[in-house]
Amino acid sequence: MSHAPTGALERRHQAVRKEAEGLDALVVTSLPNVLYLTNFTGSAAIAVLTADCLHFLTDFRYATTIEATRGTATECPALDLTIVDGSYDASLARLLASLPGTRIGFEAAHLTVSRHGWLTAALAREGSSHELVPTEGMVERARVRKDSYEVATLREAGRRLSRAARQVLGDVKRGQTEREVARAIEGRLSEAGFTKPAFDTIAAAGPNAALPHARPGERKLTEGDLVVLDFGGIYDSYCVDLTRTVSVGPANERTREVYKAVLDAHDRAIAAVAPGQSRFDIDAAARDTLTGYGLGDAFGHGTGHGLGIEVHEEPRISRRRPDVDVNLTDEAVAAGMVFTIEPGAYLPGWGGVRIEDDVLVTDNGVEVLTDVTTDLIEI
Amino acid sequence: MSHAPTGALERRHQAVRKEAEGLDALVVTSLPNVLYLTNFTGSAAIAVLTADCLHFLTDFRYATTIEATRGTATECPALDLTIVDGSYDASLARLLASLPGTRIGFEAAHLTVSRHGWLTAALAREGSSHELVPTEGMVERARVRKDSYEVATLREAGRRLSRAARQVLGDVKRGQTEREVARAIEGRLSEAGFTKPAFDTIAAAGPNAALPHARPGERKLTEGDLVVLDFGGIYDSYCVDLTRTVSVGPANERTREVYKAVLDAHDRAIAAVAPGQSRFDIDAAARDTLTGYGLGDAFGHGTGHGLGIEVHEEPRISRRRPDVDVNLTDEAVAAGMVFTIEPGAYLPGWGGVRIEDDVLVTDNGVEVLTDVTTDLIEI
Repeated sequence: MSHAPTGALERRHQAVRKEAEGLDALVVTSLPNVLYLTNFTGSAAIAVLTADCLHFLTDFRYATTIEATRGTATECPALDLTIVDGSYDASLARLLASLPGTRIGFEAAHLTVSRHGWLTAALAREGSSHELVPTEGMVERARVRKDSYEVATLREAGRRLSRAARQVLGDVKRGQTEREVARAIEGRLSEAGFTKPAFDTIAAAGPNAALPHARPGERKLTEGDLVVLDFGGIYDSYCVDLTRTVSVGPANERTREVYKAVLDAHDRAIAAVAPGQSRFDIDAAARDTLTGYGLGDAFGHGTGHGLGIEVHEEPRISRRRPDVDVNLTDEAVAAGMVFTIEPGAYLPGWGGVRIEDDVLVTDNGVEVLTDVTTDLIEI
Repeated sequence: MSHAPTGALERRHQAVRKEAEGLDALVVTSLPNVLYLTNFTGSAAIAVLTADCLHFLTDFRYATTIEATRGTATECPALDLTIVDGSYDASLARLLASLPGTRIGFEAAHLTVSRHGWLTAALAREGSSHELVPTEGMVERARVRKDSYEVATLREAGRRLSRAARQVLGDVKRGQTEREVARAIEGRLSEAGFTKPAFDTIAAAGPNAALPHARPGERKLTEGDLVVLDFGGIYDSYCVDLTRTVSVGPANERTREVYKAVLDAHDRAIAAVAPGQSRFDIDAAARDTLTGYGLGDAFGHGTGHGLGIEVHEEPRISRRRPDVDVNLTDEAVAAGMVFTIEPGAYLPGWGGVRIEDDVLVTDNGVEVLTDVTTDLIEI
């Protein structure tokens, strides 16, 4: 397992400190954000970033692992370790009460109303004059543009996923059940070095292919079925994601038409990716193409989502939502962003097609991180 | 995939309505709680329970699945479906503003400060006089005692996990890497009918066995190693969890001593389980036993955790935490509760032992849901 070098962590800390200007500390409770700042991959921890320190709270289960990174090339800089015995939030309140300054930022999108209420009361009990200040997306704004360590990791993950996908396209046979296909896919992911699937593997045949999030069941792959295969893996903590759709037996004319439309939407969306381009326009490149084929209504989801420590993160490549995105000013994609392009067409009762690749925005345009044929394969 | 019958869902709704007395509606944003009330197994939905209705918000991806359950023996009673187009919280605000009454409960432990602030502002914008009232554990208090459908599901899951575990104990061989062992375990889980692992499978050999949450790596199982194998699966949405520890080659005297101590702690904790018994006392049965063997400090985690729709839920079988559990009055376990018993001893540099089974509290005592030898196996 490789980790980000100490220098990269230091730069991430500085980027977040700049975002957090005016605050005396930032409490980071989102685990993906904690991992980004510290290389910690366990299941429980809180980070508190101050001007000169990263206070780190975890429990005894992870103490040995943290100590083992000290003095290595991937240690977290300026780490001050607290081992929690009992309640994390009680330890956090004691730590916060001891900090200089008064304005403590917290991640409003990653702290529940319940924990916020408890912390506020605990700080008051400690006689502390600290104030909890809600913040939004301070670490996520740094995460959205990948640094060179992350780009290298995602490239390697894309190569490995492509290799696994080529094997999967050779493995899949008529007569197998969706569940057997999904299990075989996960075996290939494991062989390719992925820690685990990035999400529940989808193998959806025939009418099930019309459900974008179908669960693999007992349906056997049958002559005439389209089969949507959507799978991804976590490699060194980073997620990649790929979809191909195959035909069981020779594809009929309607199948070829729908497949061609989705592939055209996929290709045009990728061609639209470049630094400075609006993510809504990248979505439109796919959506308008499908509409031109009379399949606009058959494409009910967004064109893509960001990839990184989480399998769904920023940027969202989708329609502008009138109720939420009204005053948005950060719609342009930028070099270092990594996301999926995955248009689809779903026709209830008939089936569906989805084709998905992962792309990196470069200084000049786009680099596709996954590399598997997009020809319609007949098995 | 089986689901709870409509009558069970109806009883769950009534139990939660009783908890929510004095509120005009309860907004349920925790997905495990949504599943408990509706049988919905997708990845995005919100339920709003009122006196005579369950308003259900989901997006187009799941519309077909919901419609397909209508009129079946497992349909959700009194379901009013809203298909979200755009933002879930915007749809939720519109729905809430349209409800009669004024007091809307929300799950304070499952709504972030950010979403709570947005909803409050959105309701104000709609000119609504509704008030958002924080609640704690209203659905969880129903979930902690399993109903007959859930008990039957967990029994079957326990049988399947035991079968997989017996195969695993036959599969594991010296010279395999931890990662290979973990992969083989997950293959057995899949063959046994589990949808997926309930958590990241642990196969920790030699010194790694001293880390209660080690990740499987490239270490080969070597003569003299203890190997902790901790794995679980999700069967029909319910989680079960089991640990066995094996010795590579003949166990030496120290290994036999530590194993015997942990097994004694395991057996005594199970013997202590009965309705009305304090969960702190069940923990003490394990902890005091290990202390008697001089291994009290080597046991740093709780004795067990509840199992159900989540792999870690109530009740927590652990020490009383002085900073949190001071005024607790619900420490007694009751018939229908299902939890793990999993004492361990971890000696840094040397290794560790953990032995875990799943138990159901019955009207008279305890039923062990998992059935695999607890003898020390030498491979």
